[in-house]
Amino acid sequence: MLSQLEAERKGSPVSARDLAYVLHKSKKSVEKLEQLEQLLVHDPVFNHENMNYLTRGEQYKRAMQMSARVEIIAYRNRLNETDTEQLRCIFQGITSCSAATTLHTLMFIKNLGLLFTDEQQTQWMKMAKKWRMIGCYAQTEMGHGSNVRGLETTATYIPATDEFEIHSPTLTSMKWWPGALARTANFGVVYARLLLGGKDYGVHNFMVQLRDLKTHEPMPGVMLGDVGPKIGFNNVDNGYCRFTCVRISRQNMGMRFATVTREGRYKKNSGAPQEVLYFTMLQTRMVFIRSAGINLAKACTIAIRYSAVRQQGYDANNPQSKEELSVLDYQTQQYRLLPLLAAAYAIVLTGNRVDQFAATLSEQTKRGDVHLLTAGHVMSCGLKVFTTDLATAGIETARRACGGHGYLLSSGLPILLGDALQTVTTEGDNLVLSVQTARALLKILASYKKNGAVPESMAFLANIDKLPNVNPRTKRQWIEPPCYVAAFEQRFLYQLRFYAKKISTEASVTAGLQNNSMDTLKLTNSYASLVIVKTFAEAVQTSSTLTSESISSPAVLNVVRLLCHLFALTQLEATAGEFMESGCVFTSEMPIIRANIEELLALIRPHAVTLVDGFNFSDHMLNSTLGRYDGNVYEALFESTQHDPLNHSSDKVALYELLRPIRDEISQSRL
Amino acid sequence: MLSQLEAERKGSPVSARDLAYVLHKSKKSVEKLEQLEQLLVHDPVFNHENMNYLTRGEQYKRAMQMSARVEIIAYRNRLNETDTEQLRCIFQGITSCSAATTLHTLMFIKNLGLLFTDEQQTQWMKMAKKWRMIGCYAQTEMGHGSNVRGLETTATYIPATDEFEIHSPTLTSMKWWPGALARTANFGVVYARLLLGGKDYGVHNFMVQLRDLKTHEPMPGVMLGDVGPKIGFNNVDNGYCRFTCVRISRQNMGMRFATVTREGRYKKNSGAPQEVLYFTMLQTRMVFIRSAGINLAKACTIAIRYSAVRQQGYDANNPQSKEELSVLDYQTQQYRLLPLLAAAYAIVLTGNRVDQFAATLSEQTKRGDVHLLTAGHVMSCGLKVFTTDLATAGIETARRACGGHGYLLSSGLPILLGDALQTVTTEGDNLVLSVQTARALLKILASYKKNGAVPESMAFLANIDKLPNVNPRTKRQWIEPPCYVAAFEQRFLYQLRFYAKKISTEASVTAGLQNNSMDTLKLTNSYASLVIVKTFAEAVQTSSTLTSESISSPAVLNVVRLLCHLFALTQLEATAGEFMESGCVFTSEMPIIRANIEELLALIRPHAVTLVDGFNFSDHMLNSTLGRYDGNVYEALFESTQHDPLNHSSDKVALYELLRPIRDEISQSRL
Repeated sequence: MLSQLEAERKGSPVSARDLAYVLHKSKKSVEKLEQLEQLLVHDPVFNHENMNYLTRGEQYKRAMQMSARVEIIAYRNRLNETDTEQLRCIFQGITSCSAATTLHTLMFIKNLGLLFTDEQQTQWMKMAKKWRMIGCYAQTEMGHGSNVRGLETTATYIPATDEFEIHSPTLTSMKWWPGALARTANFGVVYARLLLGGKDYGVHNFMVQLRDLKTHEPMPGVMLGDVGPKIGFNNVDNGYCRFTCVRISRQNMGMRFATVTREGRYKKNSGAPQEVLYFTMLQTRMVFIRSAGINLAKACTIAIRYSAVRQQGYDANNPQSKEELSVLDYQTQQYRLLPLLAAAYAIVLTGNRVDQFAATLSEQTKRGDVHLLTAGHVMSCGLKVFTTDLATAGIETARRACGGHGYLLSSGLPILLGDALQTVTTEGDNLVLSVQTARALLKILASYKKNGAVPESMAFLANIDKLPNVNPRTKRQWIEPPCYVAAFEQRFLYQLRFYAKKISTEASVTAGLQNNSMDTLKLTNSYASLVIVKTFAEAVQTSSTLTSESISSPAVLNVVRLLCHLFALTQLEATAGEFMESGCVFTSEMPIIRANIEELLALIRPHAVTLVDGFNFSDHMLNSTLGRYDGNVYEALFESTQHDPLNHSSDKVALYELLRPIRDEISQSRL
Repeated sequence: MLSQLEAERKGSPVSARDLAYVLHKSKKSVEKLEQLEQLLVHDPVFNHENMNYLTRGEQYKRAMQMSARVEIIAYRNRLNETDTEQLRCIFQGITSCSAATTLHTLMFIKNLGLLFTDEQQTQWMKMAKKWRMIGCYAQTEMGHGSNVRGLETTATYIPATDEFEIHSPTLTSMKWWPGALARTANFGVVYARLLLGGKDYGVHNFMVQLRDLKTHEPMPGVMLGDVGPKIGFNNVDNGYCRFTCVRISRQNMGMRFATVTREGRYKKNSGAPQEVLYFTMLQTRMVFIRSAGINLAKACTIAIRYSAVRQQGYDANNPQSKEELSVLDYQTQQYRLLPLLAAAYAIVLTGNRVDQFAATLSEQTKRGDVHLLTAGHVMSCGLKVFTTDLATAGIETARRACGGHGYLLSSGLPILLGDALQTVTTEGDNLVLSVQTARALLKILASYKKNGAVPESMAFLANIDKLPNVNPRTKRQWIEPPCYVAAFEQRFLYQLRFYAKKISTEASVTAGLQNNSMDTLKLTNSYASLVIVKTFAEAVQTSSTLTSESISSPAVLNVVRLLCHLFALTQLEATAGEFMESGCVFTSEMPIIRANIEELLALIRPHAVTLVDGFNFSDHMLNSTLGRYDGNVYEALFESTQHDPLNHSSDKVALYELLRPIRDEISQSRL
């Protein structure tokens, strides 16, 4: 007899393999990923069966062992830099969590290359790449986050000794949050206010040694510690650091953009391309986009497989049937999960396009061509906000869709959620970024009004003054991409027009944004969802370059097109008021749109398991009792409890801590 | 100089004390709560400074010590039953978490009283109240949750010995999730299928001894364990239990509603009031409502106090100013937090009304008068769904509003969230309950159509066929309660009408609900938000009985009225599409409504800190570094890290697990 998931897979003509090629860019890249994952899967260091039962200290230790192992495996297999970076990503995927070492390989080494001169890099880069120097990036302070201008740590130049003195003058100036700071790093790129002869030159970067390279003891004047237990990020030692008059050489200031001379004079280096700095922040945000989709895809895989296996209740349309229904057969559960599945496809496919755009941008920026940078900025901010918000909310919905079992760490969902949650706050809090998105949109609009030019990726802006002129559409029309893409475009343009008008009455754009920021998140989401719906619609409509290799399968195209419709219509439904207000959807159309959603749910249902198989996560990667490929969830649930040390102790807390004291005092007496 | 929070408090003429009397029902009840809390606060057992740094096993142990202490304190102070129950609630509030013993005092003892005959109660109730018997309620199984009919555990009558044999025939029949099962309880009320002479009589209750009363060892044939680490509920030992042919006396079946005779014959006890059983479930759901408001109120208190203290960025309207703004001065932050504050007030005030209703219902039900039961059912289901969804989402929003620090367990927010999250799944998964709410609403509507009568609490149902006939209203009108209450009523009635029509075309109501369940959550929220908006509006408009004692302060009334407007208008805005579709809000009114929201935010802002002070949480109760009454958040943050054992070990994991292995293999070589 076929197992439930086998039967599900047999019921869909779509090939999961073909889907994987679409989602992971090409056949070649799928094979490369699988090949790299194999390097880790069979290594006992990456056996993570008992990870949920460790203390925070033990988890950190395990992550360190794994981190070292990743580097050694990459080294032994002579992987190039790209493949090594992919291997590190796979390792992070396996533990559903960043590692402290990611801060070294990504942030620290990248900033070393960006902020320091070539000579400075010669001094440190080799040490860093050989892991003798392990770095962290120490920017945020206990009292200061988003507003970098408010940082308090000082770097005072001492001409007598040609040194800077790094100092934390107040409690709130203590560095607080940097990953790898508490226990891992021996060096840090420290953000501090440059003070020269009593004058404040604002925030600059300084290379500060934090620990002895041999003993790993903190350097004199450096007080280090852990900020304490937190949501997610359990492999990372987010730390605090207080500097007490720590001296470093003048040469340790990052001198690429500004120099301090031996005499203590300040010089801006006008030749250095500030845009590169700007581009790096932009690039970091862009990485969040596809990752958000992958996180959501993991949650969908777990919840949809489990919902296909889980049985509950009976079919009211067939009262004779004694067999319980699969939970996924209920419309409520489909309405909960299938729009998330559609969103995961939408975000991953958009992420593929964004990666492509980022590569172009990177090449251009290197050549000094910065004409795409503003469009890239608004795209990276807007999509980061929308996709991370959608993914974290979606992971939580998927978790709830698993009922009680979704609360268990062994389901994999709480860990996935915990680590996804930080994405809405780091690299720009989503609310702060939404104000930035609004500002950038206003800037692009103003430039269009002035010179009639818009960035290619925002061609729709040319319709800004065209008012929607629509008649109610038929049910059939509402599942045609041109119809719903136009609605998303018109909503966005209406809101932008409205917002620009509101701001134009204010003293300055900055004051205007501060006094009218309530609706910036709506504007940002409206912009980002337009980009995603357009991208998704293009991917399923034409043989776009993005998916040319794989979209050739008509079975794949058909079912992915249904997901595109579902994504667009459920997004529209969730913010229907905005569409109506902007005049591009009539209230009378809502029953039609909902009827389409109902039909789409029923049409997608038979392919649901195959559609999540298409994400191509291994059981090792999912690390979930509920999401197993074979569907043996109950065996896995029971087995997982046997890793819990609580189930291997004969501890009788209830007897000694509860019963005895109560018995001694209360039970003996009359009540 | 005034501290920031002192200045905030001075800036509002409203008395926090007066607010407390409104929120906690009366001056007398506030004083009672404070008096009871004092019994715990100064007892060293309830010092919870290091709770965030314990392992799960240690947390359970601490909770057991506290639980025992609560009972001993209540005993020594000769508290009556009501006050003892309140003391237990305060204890739960302090730890932001249920205790395993709650399952005993609430569920087990209550069910003992409900399901068992007077003779059976005589046998066990005294043991239970003296804590010699500690019980749990073992219903859910690994493979079966919401559908009680699907449970697999069997209770087979063995006439030869006059016993039942309790047995778990499959892996999925293993009891799974019951709180207190893993380590605490020595008895359980076990749900099992009654088998008599090979015939299945469906699910009944059985009293089963799980552990030896002296040694606390599992009884023969009883396999017990912990289901593993999970989100929230860290003080509770949710467990599993597999029975292998465990024999119990025939007299251990709960015989209030049905009897098995010595000969093995089954008899229904027709005299027993089934409604009482039904009423208990309803009552349990009702308890969730006010609790949801209190949880949200805690999160608001923490986030609003912190946002008043936290400074970031500068005032664009006053470019000369060097002083950073308080985060709460930003419109984005106000828009994030003040609607939550309004929601907390709305839910707590509605919860007060629900408690009152529940008391009336309880009295009536005891007298055999069940005419309010259907109205109570729909109210308990609908409000449980809406308030727990709103509160959990709100707690997460409040957490995000605290930026990075909101991720720290020491902020109190992650624990609050973890424990609130279970409320959307337990005592009826919210999605399952929304289908039940829809069913109950249809039933009440059908009865109205038939005999023209509606429950008093649903008088608005009499307008079901009255179509909205409105003209656009002015900005001023939109902050008048009759205006927005009418809009909520019309939206709900439109949706109910639409839904009833849709279901009427189906073969049966049950089939109809199964085939059209996508919109039941919207209908439920639409109903519940109407009830809450109406209740809140009544509380601030008339000298209603609910708050007659305290609403007499005009300053309180004024500011709470602003919260009522804000709650209604932000709820309307969030689901504006539904209001437009139902014909009771025009698209042209949305800018007016948003302008009102903007103004309300600015009007409420100066009172924000006083408004959260009104909830009257002690620092001990909040247990939050960010939410302290004195606003010394940074001192508290740093101090909290000193409780972390990781900051008191000289552990050099990075050196031995990361650096050494890499150095040995990679660093020595050339790169």
